[in-house]
Amino acid sequence: MESNPALVFDADDTLWHNMNLFVDTHERYAKLLDPFFPDAAALEEHLNETERKNIEHFGYGVKGFTLSMIETAVEVTGGQVSGAAIKEIIQLGREMLDAPVELLPGVEKTIQTLTQTYILGVITKGDLLNQEAKVARSGLAEYFDFVEVVSEKNPETYARTLARHDLVAEEIIMVGNSLKSDVMPILELGGRVVHIPYPVTWIHEHAVLPEALEQSDQFESISDMGELMALIENWNS
Amino acid sequence: MESNPALVFDADDTLWHNMNLFVDTHERYAKLLDPFFPDAAALEEHLNETERKNIEHFGYGVKGFTLSMIETAVEVTGGQVSGAAIKEIIQLGREMLDAPVELLPGVEKTIQTLTQTYILGVITKGDLLNQEAKVARSGLAEYFDFVEVVSEKNPETYARTLARHDLVAEEIIMVGNSLKSDVMPILELGGRVVHIPYPVTWIHEHAVLPEALEQSDQFESISDMGELMALIENWNS
Repeated sequence: MESNPALVFDADDTLWHNMNLFVDTHERYAKLLDPFFPDAAALEEHLNETERKNIEHFGYGVKGFTLSMIETAVEVTGGQVSGAAIKEIIQLGREMLDAPVELLPGVEKTIQTLTQTYILGVITKGDLLNQEAKVARSGLAEYFDFVEVVSEKNPETYARTLARHDLVAEEIIMVGNSLKSDVMPILELGGRVVHIPYPVTWIHEHAVLPEALEQSDQFESISDMGELMALIENWNS
Repeated sequence: MESNPALVFDADDTLWHNMNLFVDTHERYAKLLDPFFPDAAALEEHLNETERKNIEHFGYGVKGFTLSMIETAVEVTGGQVSGAAIKEIIQLGREMLDAPVELLPGVEKTIQTLTQTYILGVITKGDLLNQEAKVARSGLAEYFDFVEVVSEKNPETYARTLARHDLVAEEIIMVGNSLKSDVMPILELGGRVVHIPYPVTWIHEHAVLPEALEQSDQFESISDMGELMALIENWNS
């Protein structure tokens, strides 16, 4: 009998809701700026552009997003945004960082069961402190053998991170919502992936999976975490 | 013969200059806000207070510092700070993140020599992406067996981080500039430390080492990295 594969999970929008927090904040941000700049669509576009430009400097996560919201507010209003509104934007950021962690359907039971048989890990990207805080708040920390926060998810960072736990991609199954960050790098490394789409994809994570990969026996897709156990057991036998 | 201890280095203000960048940014920030709020001492005090309050939300690092500069600018000016100045503050943050890494005296030669005999690691705190970028820019990455970015430096995070590399504090020598973050947690865990003071200490890192610890044979202090090799060799024999 082959030994069980290690299961590695993405965190945001795979174990718990995250994009809904961003969607909600985008709405509150547009409402806050409405007196200064009522064109919500143009605001959204400008914010996306600012974020795209800032990612190389700020990386992923709420703090960089908050700085991008502030920069965008100043730019679209020609500097006319009020100081009070700027303070409100910082407060939006703080509230995102402190928001409760809401697990996705089937996650708790699935993780509690899988941990009895499999090595379980988390590889996530974003602000270090915030990701650690979310793992702690999730109540799931005890079930994972490792939690790794990385600054970018590409084949190199995955290979290096897995190696720290004496793993190679061929021995793992990665479970995540992002084609760009969770699925494609692991397929490229020869690993297996389970894609669990989240209803909303962040604009900077958009990607299309080539059909050949989607058809490959390295790739599976399920609609929620509750289906994971049956899939893994069949895949592993 | 006992095996060699692993040497673990702090990064900011131990391997390379960092506080000078903050000091410079504080000056540029005061100058930028001078037309709106000319009391530089009160500005400084308010900024320190905002940072202290924000650390639990934002953690350490340039992005959180930049958000604190913005929040302070709005507060001390009663919201009268201009949008242009807010943009300038964000630019100050970006420039800090992108600043060249300037090694401290004796660091390059010492690290290059020590790596031939010792396991060398880095444990640093701050923004993940920024700390990784500085290690890469430093030219020192190849000499270290591991580089770990942590969200806080206390006995628990040190013990957990060292354990990932099959180390315990008793087997290492920690080299760093901060009494609070580098020296005291390792002494508490029973490890040895070399303190290399940096001319400036961040206000939120101020600490006083109890005399008993300063006298203990776990603690040594040197004035620059060039003295490290001789110290370690004597300590280890």
